[in-house]
Amino acid sequence: MALYDLRSLLEKVRKERPLVHNITNYVVMNFTANTLLAMGASPVMAHAVNEVEEMVSLARAFVINIGTLSEHWIEAMLKGGRKANGLGIPVILDPVGAGATSLRTRTFAVMARELKLAVVRGNASEILSLASETVRTKGVEAIHGVEEAAETARETARRIETVVAITGPVDVITDGETVIRCRNGHPLLATVTGTGCAATTAIAAFAAVTEDPLEAAAAGLAFFGLAGEVAARRAQAPGSFQVALVDALYQITPDQLQAGASLETG
Amino acid sequence: MALYDLRSLLEKVRKERPLVHNITNYVVMNFTANTLLAMGASPVMAHAVNEVEEMVSLARAFVINIGTLSEHWIEAMLKGGRKANGLGIPVILDPVGAGATSLRTRTFAVMARELKLAVVRGNASEILSLASETVRTKGVEAIHGVEEAAETARETARRIETVVAITGPVDVITDGETVIRCRNGHPLLATVTGTGCAATTAIAAFAAVTEDPLEAAAAGLAFFGLAGEVAARRAQAPGSFQVALVDALYQITPDQLQAGASLETG
Amino acid sequence: MALYDLRSLLEKVRKERPLVHNITNYVVMNFTANTLLAMGASPVMAHAVNEVEEMVSLARAFVINIGTLSEHWIEAMLKGGRKANGLGIPVILDPVGAGATSLRTRTFAVMARELKLAVVRGNASEILSLASETVRTKGVEAIHGVEEAAETARETARRIETVVAITGPVDVITDGETVIRCRNGHPLLATVTGTGCAATTAIAAFAAVTEDPLEAAAAGLAFFGLAGEVAARRAQAPGSFQVALVDALYQITPDQLQAGASLETG
Repeated sequence: MALYDLRSLLEKVRKERPLVHNITNYVVMNFTANTLLAMGASPVMAHAVNEVEEMVSLARAFVINIGTLSEHWIEAMLKGGRKANGLGIPVILDPVGAGATSLRTRTFAVMARELKLAVVRGNASEILSLASETVRTKGVEAIHGVEEAAETARETARRIETVVAITGPVDVITDGETVIRCRNGHPLLATVTGTGCAATTAIAAFAAVTEDPLEAAAAGLAFFGLAGEVAARRAQAPGSFQVALVDALYQITPDQLQAGASLETG
Repeated sequence: MALYDLRSLLEKVRKERPLVHNITNYVVMNFTANTLLAMGASPVMAHAVNEVEEMVSLARAFVINIGTLSEHWIEAMLKGGRKANGLGIPVILDPVGAGATSLRTRTFAVMARELKLAVVRGNASEILSLASETVRTKGVEAIHGVEEAAETARETARRIETVVAITGPVDVITDGETVIRCRNGHPLLATVTGTGCAATTAIAAFAAVTEDPLEAAAAGLAFFGLAGEVAARRAQAPGSFQVALVDALYQITPDQLQAGASLETG
Repeated sequence: MALYDLRSLLEKVRKERPLVHNITNYVVMNFTANTLLAMGASPVMAHAVNEVEEMVSLARAFVINIGTLSEHWIEAMLKGGRKANGLGIPVILDPVGAGATSLRTRTFAVMARELKLAVVRGNASEILSLASETVRTKGVEAIHGVEEAAETARETARRIETVVAITGPVDVITDGETVIRCRNGHPLLATVTGTGCAATTAIAAFAAVTEDPLEAAAAGLAFFGLAGEVAARRAQAPGSFQVALVDALYQITPDQLQAGASLETG
């Protein structure tokens, strides 16, 4: 369903080629940079404390991904995030592994408290690690269906005043009020490392060209998920699927995105 | 020859999807994570000193790879390794570049002394760097054939009480007593960076589901080598070969592994 | 046009398999290592301050790439570079992002002052960041055509006594006197991250087998660009193009390089 004008949004990305600054994890740096290039945006990766502010000032979106976190990177993430906030550049957070270790859970909480986050994208257990105690004590095992994910997402979105996107078989995207479900995607995406992180950076590319973070999150997940569907029609194993996925990110036209996006509210 | 029940072992990996924690090098992180995912296991990469113990506690195998070593990573490797030892989680070491620089040779020696290693996998010169002076003075050039590699491997396995796997045209795997030769593999594997490191992490995935490290090392090398053979039937140059290799890791069935493994003792 | 005997040069790389030591950025480490392996050279990545001198002593070329720079890596880059200079090992610099942030612009200047660089490869804005104020104040926007790029390259080559290669639609390579233009390449190269960095490391592989850095730079860019042309005949989107590119680096014969290189002086 055409909740948004995704056609125009993808056209804008491809025309304006926005610079997206990433402080991300070592595992996915290459793949997320290639995701941005393939979809039409411009990636830069820079994490040095003494250049992060200057670099983020050149960018139109800033991605923080804590996948291979260490203490001295947190400082650069916060410094870049604060600079981005000051300049009105959207900050997109991927709290990889929050809930698994206290360093990551704590870092997610610090980011949420210290920064104005435009969008947070994670799986259910990552997002749950920041939920209120009431929600959290139910445990991640309790998040069986879309309804439970939606409740967790909405509560977290309200608490930290952001858009939360929980990805899974059905993605849930919410600003705390409106809840959007995205049904794009394919199980093979789970066989390639970094597809979640790449979806996050796709959201950032859209956040660079719209003022509405809910729209950006929906666009990013619909687009990336659709690319997964296209790739799965061409390849049935992870190596060739990843190649086809990057190809699809490059080849999907604005019209195909508009027609293929599976987004609905409620 | 069916030395082991590799069929059941691969079935276990695919059913239980064991979490394998890696502290590995920057060059291969993406490829080894994708290797684990493709074969059916679950990868995590985490190197921060203040989370390594917590993360390793969640895992069923721990890989240490010194390919892009620096001092502050050694501390995390040792801390994670000691925690894994305490919990009975198998530690698999890939001493990349040992013998080439004193930092790496020394780090290999420290790991071997401080940790109980389940399996060490390397090429002949890496393993030789830890051998006794008697063996070492012959030099890596002396390791021409399988016999010399077997002697080096067996001596090292006994000295540090581990399973040693020396990969080459024919792989030699030994616990210091039994010597297994694996003839799976293909020359194109040498044209892609990180195939040795990926074979190490495949060993770790099997070590997560068996108590016997000799079996795990044999299974990992037979499986990874067989994937190389399958890939080489589909692609004759490194780019497409790597794609086909990842596909094969995903597609090889337990029956095909059992039938295709080329393992023999003696 | 056959400016150089590229046939013999590629034959030498494939026969001698020179070890190329890289201190490069996280994003491209895997891709540049695979570039070197595919073309026939041997990669090593090592950045630890306490092993960089030992490692560079084993190598025949040393690549410094500042793409994901942080302070403590600069020390290793300089230490490795000085050691390489002392041993007569060619140092190849890729000043990624110079001009974008002061950290990178300053680091480029420090490298140029402290080290004897055999070749510097970058895009126009990166190279311009080191040009004299006279040239620089024209701004990167002024570098519209090959002539302006050639002027910037020549001035910089003279000032720091190196070979400068500015890559773009037409590459310009100069030692400050002779100017060579390379027309090999394809627009799809810009859709894959790290192709510039990979071209730099291809230059290093050739610098390992010739005394003439101008020849090495021309050979590296002609060879890498030709691989891009071959790949573009096989694939029209970034994922499959990158696979085809690595395949082409492996498959292009010395004769094909000699016939396909588009190099001219003047």
